[in-house]
Parts: sequence; structure tokens; C-alpha cells
Amino acid sequence: MSAARVVRLRSAAVPVDARRTTQPRASRRVVCSAGSDDTIHILVNSCTGKMGHATAESVVERNKNVKLVPYTFCGKSTGVAVGDIGVCGVPVERVSPEERQDALDTIKGQYPNLVIIDYTLPMAVNDNAEFYCRNGVPFVMGTTGGDREALIRDTKASGNYAVIAPNMGKQIVAFQSMMEMMAEQFPGCFDGYTLEVRESHQRTKVDTSGTAKAVVKSFQRMGLSDFKEEDIIKVRALDDQLAFGVPAEVIDSGHAYHTYHLTSGDGTVQLEFQHNVNGRRVYAEGTVDAAVFLADLVKKGGSSGSRVFDMVDVLRAGAMQ
Amino acid sequence: MSAARVVRLRSAAVPVDARRTTQPRASRRVVCSAGSDDTIHILVNSCTGKMGHATAESVVERNKNVKLVPYTFCGKSTGVAVGDIGVCGVPVERVSPEERQDALDTIKGQYPNLVIIDYTLPMAVNDNAEFYCRNGVPFVMGTTGGDREALIRDTKASGNYAVIAPNMGKQIVAFQSMMEMMAEQFPGCFDGYTLEVRESHQRTKVDTSGTAKAVVKSFQRMGLSDFKEEDIIKVRALDDQLAFGVPAEVIDSGHAYHTYHLTSGDGTVQLEFQHNVNGRRVYAEGTVDAAVFLADLVKKGGSSGSRVFDMVDVLRAGAMQ
Repeated sequence: MSAARVVRLRSAAVPVDARRTTQPRASRRVVCSAGSDDTIHILVNSCTGKMGHATAESVVERNKNVKLVPYTFCGKSTGVAVGDIGVCGVPVERVSPEERQDALDTIKGQYPNLVIIDYTLPMAVNDNAEFYCRNGVPFVMGTTGGDREALIRDTKASGNYAVIAPNMGKQIVAFQSMMEMMAEQFPGCFDGYTLEVRESHQRTKVDTSGTAKAVVKSFQRMGLSDFKEEDIIKVRALDDQLAFGVPAEVIDSGHAYHTYHLTSGDGTVQLEFQHNVNGRRVYAEGTVDAAVFLADLVKKGGSSGSRVFDMVDVLRAGAMQ
Repeated sequence: MSAARVVRLRSAAVPVDARRTTQPRASRRVVCSAGSDDTIHILVNSCTGKMGHATAESVVERNKNVKLVPYTFCGKSTGVAVGDIGVCGVPVERVSPEERQDALDTIKGQYPNLVIIDYTLPMAVNDNAEFYCRNGVPFVMGTTGGDREALIRDTKASGNYAVIAPNMGKQIVAFQSMMEMMAEQFPGCFDGYTLEVRESHQRTKVDTSGTAKAVVKSFQRMGLSDFKEEDIIKVRALDDQLAFGVPAEVIDSGHAYHTYHLTSGDGTVQLEFQHNVNGRRVYAEGTVDAAVFLADLVKKGGSSGSRVFDMVDVLRAGAMQ
């Protein structure tokens, strides 16, 4: 979408849909143009990245009440000359930083119940969030990094709705949260135990898994205070990864394998917890769940408390389904 | 302890300790006879059984503030003619059902901060509890079976303090409770997943693990409602048990191995939880923890709410240590 086209869209008030009636998504657009239905529209920024693209795919594969907005806001470096990006056969058009305000004005008019999902770059996190807040569009911030404290503070101050979470994998977040609850409820329940933690990720990942570090914090409160973050074993060598059970085909693409092994002082009791993820799909699906959670909340008249949520809130909302 | 000896003890007011000053536990008895200290005295019924004996051993191995009362109340069938039973070198004398009231009157006078632990037989559960309640002695009911509803109702009505729980393994109970919390907080979090549950116990165990059944109930609430109790795989054949990781030396003695394996609908996410126990020590130690919990509660002036607790209450009390 060039700036000229955005302007044309706005000045002529030509619906985004109308320009695309011959495209594969025509049936969805008919629903969109009705305007009065409950369809949730999701704009994914940016579909040019792996995580954004996987999330856009999850949107398209979702049920008929969730639709992908066929635009994606990209950073300058990704260029604007490239044409449509396919997401499961749905063409998606890039919008450059200069065009984004005009484009969003148009999109807001055309796609009711709009939620933005952000998978961009750490350097864009705070500026993007500020842009979404200024335009009053609920958003899910899946991008990590940036100034997190400012991100949460500024979003809260704006009154906009958002889910901000470093890990969108619902089941993994549920496990992590369960360990926190255990530490809270049963401090010292593993007194006298020893702990071994192993995590495997793609070989280019230099730092230790953030999830493993968070879970270790919980174990420390459960009586394993001697276990330090640096005791986490980072499995990065091919042979070790294969021995750890990582399938060869995901070793270099995305994988996240974690094993926590507890042994009692006398060796008679052993507990083990594992969470192993191949690819990005679990995160993509969790992100779409978060977007639907926000849209549902806004439809129901909003929240009386804070409007900034995390994945635990999204998981808890499952209770209301 | 024959009936005659009990009568002699009472009529002559001869301390139980005084009769045993030449025995190995003399130093402990000096502490006992002081009467004004904080020593917790634990009477284990019955040390003639495997679980009771293991628990008595855990009492003796505990720190100096916890002492084993050198008597044990036995059922009629175990006979009264047999002499002392050794618990880690501490002689323990049997008390027959006919002698138990007189013996308890004497013991209460000699051993302050008294708590009874019951590992007897299902048929004795309700009568024993009623006896402990009538005498106002706090007790830990580790014996399973009997009329559980009546047990809890009658104990509550008596105003006596008790921990009543079918599983005394603190860490296993913590895990089980964690799964319940997860089901409560995040219902449906494993929607679309499949579950496989395997448990191994001694070959003579015909029924399915109670812990596995309880955990499955939680998983059902987390979105796995199609999984039934009868889907739990009972591993009982020697070769299967060895393949499941059970060490050869515990296959016929006590062991309790459990694995819960979750797989997402698309196969990209797998979670696994294991809890594997060899022998009885973890249960014995948890039982002693429960007895100490009761003694501490009574010392502190009791509880304003219910006086009947389970192992989750004992675990939670860890927060106050």
C-alpha cells in the first residue's frame, strides 16, 4: 500500500474490501463489510517476520469469526517496494511507517472489532505501542525487548486495552504459573532435594531460556535456594540435542525443550517436569487467543480494573467460556 | 506391656522412663521426664506393620525435639506375647486392645505434647479415631479405608485435632494439589491435547493408583474430558516395570511410579510430569511432619477454624516456618 494509495482510499472513501472483491478472501470481506456482525478483525505487524507470519497463519486458520486484516505495518528497513505477502493464500499488503497513520484510519473504518498483534523488533516496541494507544486500538505485544517498564506504564496510562507478555505459549505459561503457585502455596516443599535443569534451543541462542530462569526462581522458593541460574544446563551441541530428544528437523528451526529433574536427599523420590515445543505454532495460537480475549472484553463493555493483561489473565478467561 | 504392668505403672505412679533407665534411650527419657520442655512425643500405632515401623524410624531419626514413645498399640491378632520391637535400636513394647485405655492414661502423664500416628488396618480406622478423640489426643490418620465420611464427621464433632489424609507423601501431594489448582485456575488449558497416563506399583496391587485417578480428574477439567479412569495404564508385569524405569530392587517391595504425558493436537507441543517413589520413606517423613504440625498448632493455642486437616494444610504451614 503506497502513501498515494492510502490517500486515495481515504479521500474516495473506497472500502479496502471493495478494491479486492475478485480476490480469494471475497467471502470474508462480505462479512466484514456488513459492519454489524461480531467478526473480530486482526491486523498482524509484521507478517514479514517468522513469528508474525506464523501468527497471521493461525488467524486465517481460526474459526470464521476471526479474520485477518490484509495489511501489515512494516519497519523502514524491510522496504515498501515488495508486493503482497501470502498468508495461507491470503494476500497481505505492506504499509510503511510513513503511511501507517493514514492506513490505520482507513482500516479502523473498514474492519470493526479491530485488534493489533505486534511481532516486530525490540527497537520498535515502545513506539509501536504508543501508536496503537494513541489510536485507541487494543493490541497484543508479542515482541520482546524494548523498555518494558515504560511499555506497561504508558499503556496503562493511555487507558487502551493490551495483552503484554514475553511468552504467548498458553500451556507453557500455565505450567510456569503453576510452579509460581506451588512456590507461593507450599514454600520449602522440596527442602533437601537436588535439582537439575536442562534446556535446548537453536544453536544460535547464546543466552539461557527465560522460561527456565523463571521456573528456577519458583524452585528456589520451594527449598532449592542453592540452585543458581548459571546451574541451568544449556544444550546447544547437535549430538547433545539429539540425545535430549529434539527431533533432527527442528534443531535449527524453532524448538524449546525444557526438563526439570528433582531428587530427594536420600534418592528415594524423583519428580520430573518437561515441556517441549517444536516450531512456533503454540505461540502463534496463544497470541490469537490473546487477541480474541481483548476483542471479547471490549465487546462486553470492558474491564473495571486494569486494562493491561498478561497470558495468565487470558488463561483464566478460559473459565468463562 | 501386660495389663498387670500397666496397673502397676499407674498405681505406683512409676514413670515409664524410670523403668528403662538402663536402656539405650536413657538420654531421651531424661528430656521426656523434664516435662516442661517443648519435646514432641509421638506414639506410633502400630510399629508391627511396615508403614508404622517406617514412620517410627523417621521419628527416631528426626531432630532432638521429636521423640518416639516406646509403646505401640496393636490389634488382637498380632498377639501380646511377643516382646520388644526394635525401631532403630529403640525397644518398643506392644500394648493390647484391652490394655490401651490404661496405657494411654499413663503415657499421657509421662509424655507431654503427645501426638498419635495411626498406621493400622482399615477395619480399625473408625474405632481407633474414636478412641483418640475420646482421650483428647491429636492424631494423624495414615491408615486408609474404613468409613471416611464418618471418620471426618466424628473427629470434627469431637473437637480433637487431627490430620486425615490418604497420601502422606508431601511432595506428591504438592504435585497433586498443583494440578488441582491448574484445573481451577486454567480450565480448558489443554483443549485439543491427548493424554497418556502410566503407573507402576507392586504386582499384587490390583486396583489403579488413587493418585493417578485424582490427577486424571484434574486433567479432565483442563480440557481432557474424554480421558477416562480406565484409560490409565497399570504397569504390573516385570519387564514392563523395568522398561518403565523401576529399579529391580524395589519392584516387589514398595514403589509408586507415575507418568502423565500430554501431546497437542498437531503434535508440536509435549508436556510430561513424573513422580517416582521407591520405598516408604517419603510417606513416613510426611507423616511425622503432619504430627509435628499438629503439636505445634496445639502449643500455639490451637486453631480458630476446623481442627481436622489434610496434607495440603501441612504443606501450607511450611510458609510459617
